[in-house]
Formats: sequence, C-alpha cells, structure tokens
Amino acid sequence: MRINMADWEEYFSKQTPPANLEETRNAVSEFAASHRNAGRNIVLITSGGTAVPLENNTVRFIDNFSSGTRGSASAEHFLQQGYAVVFLYRQHSLQPFMRQISPEAILDIMDFKEDREGASHIQVDENRAPNLREVLKRYQEVQVMGTLLLVEFNTLSDYLFLLRTMAEVLGTMGPQIMFYLAAAVSDFYIPSDSMAEHKISSEGPLELNMQQVPKMLSPLVKLWARNAFVVSFKLETDVNIISKKAREALTKYNHQVVVSNILQTRKKTVVIVTPSQEMAIWMPDNELDLGKEIEAKIVVELIKMHQQFIGSSTIIMQGISPAK
Amino acid sequence: MRINMADWEEYFSKQTPPANLEETRNAVSEFAASHRNAGRNIVLITSGGTAVPLENNTVRFIDNFSSGTRGSASAEHFLQQGYAVVFLYRQHSLQPFMRQISPEAILDIMDFKEDREGASHIQVDENRAPNLREVLKRYQEVQVMGTLLLVEFNTLSDYLFLLRTMAEVLGTMGPQIMFYLAAAVSDFYIPSDSMAEHKISSEGPLELNMQQVPKMLSPLVKLWARNAFVVSFKLETDVNIISKKAREALTKYNHQVVVSNILQTRKKTVVIVTPSQEMAIWMPDNELDLGKEIEAKIVVELIKMHQQFIGSSTIIMQGISPAK
Repeated sequence: MRINMADWEEYFSKQTPPANLEETRNAVSEFAASHRNAGRNIVLITSGGTAVPLENNTVRFIDNFSSGTRGSASAEHFLQQGYAVVFLYRQHSLQPFMRQISPEAILDIMDFKEDREGASHIQVDENRAPNLREVLKRYQEVQVMGTLLLVEFNTLSDYLFLLRTMAEVLGTMGPQIMFYLAAAVSDFYIPSDSMAEHKISSEGPLELNMQQVPKMLSPLVKLWARNAFVVSFKLETDVNIISKKAREALTKYNHQVVVSNILQTRKKTVVIVTPSQEMAIWMPDNELDLGKEIEAKIVVELIKMHQQFIGSSTIIMQGISPAK
Repeated sequence: MRINMADWEEYFSKQTPPANLEETRNAVSEFAASHRNAGRNIVLITSGGTAVPLENNTVRFIDNFSSGTRGSASAEHFLQQGYAVVFLYRQHSLQPFMRQISPEAILDIMDFKEDREGASHIQVDENRAPNLREVLKRYQEVQVMGTLLLVEFNTLSDYLFLLRTMAEVLGTMGPQIMFYLAAAVSDFYIPSDSMAEHKISSEGPLELNMQQVPKMLSPLVKLWARNAFVVSFKLETDVNIISKKAREALTKYNHQVVVSNILQTRKKTVVIVTPSQEMAIWMPDNELDLGKEIEAKIVVELIKMHQQFIGSSTIIMQGISPAK
C-alpha cells in the first residue's frame, strides 16, 4: 500500500490538463498503430522551451533559451531514415521543413508574375530561396506518406501532461518506439496556489520563490514506457562537467542514451553517452560550410543503437516466451 | 552640481551596449533626415517582449507575454496614413506585413506549377492565402518608398540602449516625431554582477532576487526627446485600476497619451487617456468578423492628436521666435 504520492503524481494533481489532451491521445494512438502496422519505427521528438507562468493571468513567464533547431532538424533526418515522427513542440518554435524558410524574409522571395494569358500569379523567386524546391518536395512527400504528426504546447504544465499521455500510448508498443527528448524543459516552477492572481505590481524589488519540477524521466522510464528506447538531452555551459552529469543521469534514470552538449558549441559538437561508451560527434568546418547539420550524424548513430536495442529486446522476449 | 547618478544612468553604466548600436544610430539618423526633408511625420514603434537573462551564459530568461501583434499591426496602419516608421522589435516577434502569413502554414500555400514551356515554378495557391496578394502589394510599395526601417533586439538591455539612442537622434527633430511605445518591457532584472556565471543547477528550490528596472519614460520625455509626441501603453489584467494607473503615469512622466488595455480584451477595446480626456475605442463584433483591426482606429485617433500637438507646438515656437 502506498501512503505518499510520488512527487510527479502530486505535480499533476495540482495542475489543470490542457484542452487538447484527449484529442491528442486519440491522434497519437491512431497515428502510431497505423505506422506500427506498416512496420515503421516511431520516434517522439520533443522540441523548444517551456513557458513557466509567474502569474495566473499570465503577463510574465520564465522561459528557456531554445528556438527548436535541434528538434526540428532531427525530425527531418528521422523522416529521411524511414521513421514516423510525433513532433511535440513549443508554439512558434521551429518546425520541420518550415524552419528552412525565414519568416522575416518570406515576402522578399515572392513576386507577381504574369502568364501568357495575362493572368497574374504570385511566384517564388528561387534565386532568393535556393533550397526551397528541395524542401517543398520533401515536405510534400511526407504529407503524402502521413509520417509526421505535429502537436503544439506552450506552458511547462501542458508539455508535461502531453508527454505523459503520449508516453502512455506509445509505451505499450514495445522497443520500436524511441523517445528523443530534446525540449528545453524548465527545472523550476511556481505552484498555481502560490501564484499572483493579477499582474505583479512593478514597484520595488521582486523576490520569486520557485519549486523544483519533478524529474519526469523517472516515471517515463519506469512506468509509462518501460520497453522504449529513451534518449535524453543535457545542455550545460561548462564543458568540464558534461560527461559526469550525463553518466549520473544514466545511473539515476536507467535509460539508454544521454546526448550532452554545450550551449555555445552545440552545432559543432555533441557527446553521445551510453552506459558502455562515450562518443564525440564532431562537424568539421568544411561540412558546416556546405550546410550539413550535426543532427544528421546524431540521428544516424542513434538509429544504429536503436536497431541493436530492438534486436536484443526481441531476443529477451523470445527467451521468456512459453516453449512450443 | 549633480552628486548622484540618476537610476537610469546607473543602469546604463553597468550594462554592455549591443553590437549594432552605432550602426543603428547612423541608420535611424539618415532615415529620419530624409523623411523629414520629404515632409513626412515619423513614428518610432517599439514592439514585442524583452528577454531578461537569469544567467550570464544565458539558458534561462524571464519574458513578457507579447507576440508583437499590436506593434506590427499599428506599423502597417501608420504607413498607410503616410508616416515613416522606425520599427524596434523583439527578435522573432511579429513584423509588419510578414505577420499576415503564418510561418506554420507557409509550405502549405505553395505548390509546383509547370508553365507552357514545361519549366517548373513554385507558385502560391491564392485560394489558401486569400489576403496575400493585397499584403504583398502593400509591402512592395513600402519597399519602393523606403518608409519602413526595421531594428531588432532580444534582451531588455539591448532594447533600452537602442531606445535611448533612437530617442536622442529623433528627439532633435521636433514635434513631428511620435513615440509609440508598445513593447512589453520588463519591470525587473538581475544586475550582471549578481548573476550566475553558468547555468543555475537544477537541484532544490530557486530564489530569485530581482531589481526594479528604471523607468526610461522619465529621461525620454525630459531629456532625450523633449519636443516629441509620446504615447505609452499600459497592459493590466484588472479593469478596475486601468484608468487610475494611466492617469498616474501621465502626471508622473508628463507625456501626451497612455493607451490602456486589458490582457484578455485587448483586441476588442482600449482606452486612450490624455491629460484632458478618456476615450474608449471599441470594436463591434461585426467589424472583427470582417477582419478589421482595432489598431486602425487607435492609429487614426492618435494621428489626430499628433496633428493638434504639432499645430500647438508650432504656435509656441513662433511665439518665442525673435521678431523680424
């Protein structure tokens, strides 16, 4: 008999679920079932920062620096490798494919063109958007295949509810599911009941007392998605502690991989840490100059590890299956 | 003789100016001079929220809820009324014209089309973007006229340095300059010298002690831009205090207009408060249904007030000019 609620249960009990929770459960369930039937592996990618409100009628919030580059780029590379992708992303952060077009320049690449019949069309000047043809082609292929499901969040609490629900759905589907937890999730929050009702007055200094957010990786690995392949991310600013922190996380949560990176160098190098190895991925300048992305390499390495994981999981499952 | 620095002088003395400050000073100076020569009035619009770093190597920051809707919509309406617009906006917040295209849907409105010679072009499907033709036309006109200058900021400190510099430049140009301060500027910050150097550890509760940001409206009105027409904005969540707060601000800073609004109803109604009147602007549902924007009405009212202000300023200036 359990007397005390776990910290994460207590967290959920005090927050209001987002309006799109049940709709999302159904959408993810349908999406995942159809792609598993087609023999596809599935990755849930989380991406972008989480907003942590400081007031109930929110004017101010705490955010994490994250434009969603890692997550949105990785999604494209997983799709190219044949995965179906559930993309859980912060509102207005970068999306797969769309990320390749700067919203600031969108009108600059368009112009009016008359066709032979004298009808006017709005046409893209491809000299000013040299990658667009390729991006649009890949985007349209993915639309036809139906291999990308987008789900949006804004606040920390919405993110955590959606993550739990998705993990519960995907967690029943075995080792072919990967979690790629690239979102920059806040470590701190202000519980609703100790939050200001209206906008905090701007007079005088402000003291904020924030509580620690429960580590959801723990129930995710132990309860919600026990058979899945789980990759978490660590962003640090001090290179001297990243290996140690990654290793500590693997020991604590007992999942498969930590991808460690440093804020200032994250497009140039990352370290993939597993219980048995540490592998640095490095982008030479000439590859970066050609517009290549480190996410392509990260995804390829992780897919290799995922294949091995699926192989060994299957053997274990065969081992415990009843003899014929 | 002044012994003590004013609070705003002290703030600037402890912060590092943004890299684009001098470049911006020159660009604004040139832009403003050429449009004043052409007889155009000029408005400086500030837009979007300000990021307040919690760490020197920034992973976390405090932000204000603001997508830049008010500022970017207002910019378009000022341009339509013949003003030249300096648009000081938060990185990735909405921009005039661009705001009308959802970056999330940008690839959905494009498709490949072959012309009669068999050459393939990327064309916009205008059925899916019914306003785009009109928006692109107006955007291109503004590009030809050169009446819009965009300047980007990210942090609170960058914003304040840029605002001061712009105000110093525009402040010499008399009553034909309007300041339309729609940005959602943080009231609190953590001074650099008491900020964490690296990412704050995620262990344990977090106590943040924040200082009040000096009110820059005060030196702006009294020193930097003494002859300009200054409009500030107040966003509250409690309707009972908005008139009172607006009036207090006018008394304290001695500027011309406060536009007051409530977070939840800001697209439906605002109150324009001056020393002599309070005027509610209200959008009937049928106008909202037609896609009309409250910013069009706000801008028209403010331009009327600005005309009166220019008229009375000129009379005073004539009154004190030496007799012939």
